[in-house]
Amino acid sequence: MTTFTFEHVYIEAYSAIGGKKEKEGPCGDDFDGYSEDIYFHAKSFELAEQQMVKESIALTLKKAQLHLPKLAIGGDLIHQNGTSSYVAQTLHAPFIGVYGACSTSALSIGTAALLVENENIDHVLAFTSSHTEASERQFRYPNEYGGQKKETSTVTVTAAGSLLLTKKYHPLKVTSFTIGEVIDWEFKDPNDMGKAMVPAAYQTLMTHFFDTKRTFDDYDLIVTGDLGKIGYAMMAELVELQRFQLEGKLNDCGIMIYDLNHQDVFCGGSGCGCSMSVLCSKLLKKLEKKEMKRILFIATGCLHNVLSIQQKQSIPVIAHAICIERSSS
Amino acid sequence: MTTFTFEHVYIEAYSAIGGKKEKEGPCGDDFDGYSEDIYFHAKSFELAEQQMVKESIALTLKKAQLHLPKLAIGGDLIHQNGTSSYVAQTLHAPFIGVYGACSTSALSIGTAALLVENENIDHVLAFTSSHTEASERQFRYPNEYGGQKKETSTVTVTAAGSLLLTKKYHPLKVTSFTIGEVIDWEFKDPNDMGKAMVPAAYQTLMTHFFDTKRTFDDYDLIVTGDLGKIGYAMMAELVELQRFQLEGKLNDCGIMIYDLNHQDVFCGGSGCGCSMSVLCSKLLKKLEKKEMKRILFIATGCLHNVLSIQQKQSIPVIAHAICIERSSS
Repeated sequence: MTTFTFEHVYIEAYSAIGGKKEKEGPCGDDFDGYSEDIYFHAKSFELAEQQMVKESIALTLKKAQLHLPKLAIGGDLIHQNGTSSYVAQTLHAPFIGVYGACSTSALSIGTAALLVENENIDHVLAFTSSHTEASERQFRYPNEYGGQKKETSTVTVTAAGSLLLTKKYHPLKVTSFTIGEVIDWEFKDPNDMGKAMVPAAYQTLMTHFFDTKRTFDDYDLIVTGDLGKIGYAMMAELVELQRFQLEGKLNDCGIMIYDLNHQDVFCGGSGCGCSMSVLCSKLLKKLEKKEMKRILFIATGCLHNVLSIQQKQSIPVIAHAICIERSSS
Repeated sequence: MTTFTFEHVYIEAYSAIGGKKEKEGPCGDDFDGYSEDIYFHAKSFELAEQQMVKESIALTLKKAQLHLPKLAIGGDLIHQNGTSSYVAQTLHAPFIGVYGACSTSALSIGTAALLVENENIDHVLAFTSSHTEASERQFRYPNEYGGQKKETSTVTVTAAGSLLLTKKYHPLKVTSFTIGEVIDWEFKDPNDMGKAMVPAAYQTLMTHFFDTKRTFDDYDLIVTGDLGKIGYAMMAELVELQRFQLEGKLNDCGIMIYDLNHQDVFCGGSGCGCSMSVLCSKLLKKLEKKEMKRILFIATGCLHNVLSIQQKQSIPVIAHAICIERSSS
């Protein structure tokens, strides 16, 4: 059993902040803020990412009429969780750093939910982020190099999201957390991460169905993040082989964040900030507006690093899932 | 309140594996294994670190007569938690990646304890590691460069440790977890990390005392990891200013791991593997042998990265504490 269920974990507040490209995408209208400036008026891309996270956290806390959180959980793509660590020092709260690459969104929310459900604590803040230029120069080439991308590539999303989970009743709740296993299927192409992560997303989905005795019928939407166009197609095929009827119930945050026909984004978006900002903008708002009742949010991550790729190691992948639904009372 | 207490979290098994230098140090006799070869018969330092962790986990599981864990929590110093992610893919178990630099030892154990205490799960594995050459080339200079060290430096310990926590009665138990705050005191010298981390260790100790209404009198040992010689002296001074009587009750894993008079280690040891291997060798064995009844293990971490130092940011620091004691029944 790798799915933990919750009775008393509500979403008190949330927010998403993005870059210009993300603002122009299909989720842009549901963002709480954005910056035309890729530097977010900071001196470096890394500081820009920190600034973006700080703005999201400040907004989320403001919506909950709080000044500081009681406890915070976060992670990101920068070496040694750089963004989260530097942001955390402004929070003056106990901090748990987590790392799951792009699955950090569901990992931080799920870990926060475990604490809210079980411990005597008012609320826990979960946050994550990514910045396209900061990631680019860390995982790939210097920004000035302008290296060509493969068609299978995704664009790291410039966005940050944060949620405040609490025991007190609110319209939306987190009802389960399925912790994923790290999978190695000997896949080695870091320019095709969507494909790399499909087995992890699929296994976590099946584990979730097995543990909860649910199927697609129990959900209005099952949304992965971030498989992108190619990964999504593979995932849909695997799911259909199980004779599940999709009926538009499967989607992917890497596809939802951008307009793939009109924005120059290859296979779509990726990065911790991608799934987190889609969740904290379009998805949670659709649940609030009663356009959906229950969703399964499966965030996927590639756990390689620059050195492991240089040393020709395969890419370990993981996916964590959280179930979010409208409270019944 | 940032201290969570546990009633039913026991240590079923544990092990520590080290390198040659660590084997020759004061904890060496209590290690479960070591390698004369800094490569651990692998092709790179990074693979060596993975090999070391795998050996520790295999031993810990063997002691508990298990083949695989039910759930695992781990982290390390390599970019994007590289070691832990690659090790986790051999565990075939749900995995939570955590990051707290050298505080990852207490962070992984504490997070595992939260799950064992609260959830319907037989056991949870916690592990962490560091490798001196892998860290050296990632955080500092290429190994071949042979850059000179400052006297305030510490040596990254080559060691891995793992523990299996369970609900079932065993002689040793984890009874609390104090989650630390990230502190910035504008300290910027990455060659003096012991000093950098003192405020975090001190704050977490005081928070623990405040939350639990305990003092030094309630512990046989309060052990930080890893402040090293200079950091330890500062910590002792701060503690004595509070009029606590130390009476040999304060020590530091960075000092305990090496013979500072005879091994060439500057201010002592550091790295995730330092505090974890001291805990999983000398400290837990002393508790088992009834030489001590209760200890507070405060693992400290510097949360900077190479880029943040290049960009002249200060070093964020954190310390997490766990209380370990002999079971009374």
